[in-house]
Amino acid sequence: MRIAVIGAGAMGSIYGGRLSQNNEVFLVDTNKAVIDVVNQNGLILEENGHDNKYSPKAVNTTEGLEPADLIILFVKALYSRSALESNRHIISGNTYLMTLQNGSGHEDILSEFAPVERIIIGTTEDNGAVLSPGHVRHGGKGNTNVGMLVEDSNHFLPRLKEAFDSCGFNVRIHENIQQLIWNKLFVNVAFSAVTGLLKCEMGFIAKCDYAMNLSKKLLHEAVTVAHALGLEADESKLLEEIKSVSENSPNGVTSISADLRAGRKTEVDTISGSVVRAAKKCKIEVPCHEFIVNAIHAMENYNVR
Amino acid sequence: MRIAVIGAGAMGSIYGGRLSQNNEVFLVDTNKAVIDVVNQNGLILEENGHDNKYSPKAVNTTEGLEPADLIILFVKALYSRSALESNRHIISGNTYLMTLQNGSGHEDILSEFAPVERIIIGTTEDNGAVLSPGHVRHGGKGNTNVGMLVEDSNHFLPRLKEAFDSCGFNVRIHENIQQLIWNKLFVNVAFSAVTGLLKCEMGFIAKCDYAMNLSKKLLHEAVTVAHALGLEADESKLLEEIKSVSENSPNGVTSISADLRAGRKTEVDTISGSVVRAAKKCKIEVPCHEFIVNAIHAMENYNVR
Repeated sequence: MRIAVIGAGAMGSIYGGRLSQNNEVFLVDTNKAVIDVVNQNGLILEENGHDNKYSPKAVNTTEGLEPADLIILFVKALYSRSALESNRHIISGNTYLMTLQNGSGHEDILSEFAPVERIIIGTTEDNGAVLSPGHVRHGGKGNTNVGMLVEDSNHFLPRLKEAFDSCGFNVRIHENIQQLIWNKLFVNVAFSAVTGLLKCEMGFIAKCDYAMNLSKKLLHEAVTVAHALGLEADESKLLEEIKSVSENSPNGVTSISADLRAGRKTEVDTISGSVVRAAKKCKIEVPCHEFIVNAIHAMENYNVR
Repeated sequence: MRIAVIGAGAMGSIYGGRLSQNNEVFLVDTNKAVIDVVNQNGLILEENGHDNKYSPKAVNTTEGLEPADLIILFVKALYSRSALESNRHIISGNTYLMTLQNGSGHEDILSEFAPVERIIIGTTEDNGAVLSPGHVRHGGKGNTNVGMLVEDSNHFLPRLKEAFDSCGFNVRIHENIQQLIWNKLFVNVAFSAVTGLLKCEMGFIAKCDYAMNLSKKLLHEAVTVAHALGLEADESKLLEEIKSVSENSPNGVTSISADLRAGRKTEVDTISGSVVRAAKKCKIEVPCHEFIVNAIHAMENYNVR
């Protein structure tokens, strides 16, 4: 399969590197330093304590390249649209667009570039961290959960599963992928923006009733929206999950909290913001989500004054 | 008039000091250092660049004292109940309780200690700052706006006005004092908790659309509650006022923001929290106020972990 992986961060490198074993992979990134290192020395993934070398073709631009069979988007979600725009010429009438990005609702942007029957959404349970340019730790491994927004009438997902699994991934195809995405989103909305707002660690939520009240209000709104979307959500069970995640990761730092501490823009729009957009479609009010999304953006602005 | 002023901060000192010219005034505070200084050297108010000496009786406790005609509460609102409890023995069947504290809804606590017809609420346009123990700058001067929750059947307010005005204050008696209190509250709820949440200066609100969105949402809820209370509130006019206050005080720091920066407890319950309580009485939802009150309390807790 001819695959373009856009975004050579930790996850893009892990997928781009491993998939290059049995596929023609282009790893696309605007960071010239990473591209040069990968082309000179290969892409090194530290896996189970060993450094393994992979050889995707790293490129700064896809100009002049033929269309891909599959494009996987691994940029930060706030750059999704511009990343797809600058790589529009490798999207043909047969190209599938795939996102495993954090949060939900990424299909809204993807569908500006491909028809709904060629969009693949999902989640990854793998994780990793960039050690240095071209050197990435492949940490935890798990399932790559994928699904489509409509029926997979061309039977593409089984082909994708074969291509991925032969490279060491474990793809699971889901009939109702949105349910899976939202299962991950509930805990995310209850944690990420709240720990960002308070610039606190994950453990503080379970320790402070007021912080837990914020998480509860956000969870309640997200559950209401999920129900309106026809998804399942057991609010009291999810609340227990939130408590136990907080207690079990006392020093955990969410990406929004880390970004705000470092003065960077956050992914709040793809996490809490995706609940706001889904709520609008369902004509449901989510005042706490609207409030916290504005608050996080205001904090971003205050950071960079 | 026999007056007990509880709380010898800036405002308590200004009122206690000046009122002692023509009234028997007890200035009550738990801070022994202030009490000792005032009893030894008098209370010094810097007024128009001059240090003027006043001689209220400063006491650590009111134990053994006869009941007062009037008790003015100038403690931080979160200490109102405990302050009244420890001075309960100077509240007789004829004692009036008065609050000029920031925020609204202080009458709820006062009415635990005196019947509604002996409760005086209001606002002060005077301001000041503590320079050192027993030495206070009396900065801006303005009206002392007072009113009662029910008809002033004993005609106490005109007597109060006489007692105050003879000491240099300018008391204005209002038929609808709640309107005046809320007029002040609208700007307060739009600024205080938001600048606290963002730990920003007042000028940031007008500069950042996201921050202004927070203020707008809070203002909208407060206006809805005010209307339900039968008060007048012109939302678009108030919004203009908020913008111009922000633009005219770019480096202004609200008390909530200052308290959070210093790791202290804030007065959010008497500002935003008073809107939550008023909304509950009117059976109106104020999700943004509930959210921000919880957020500020969580920040207080995070500060003092």
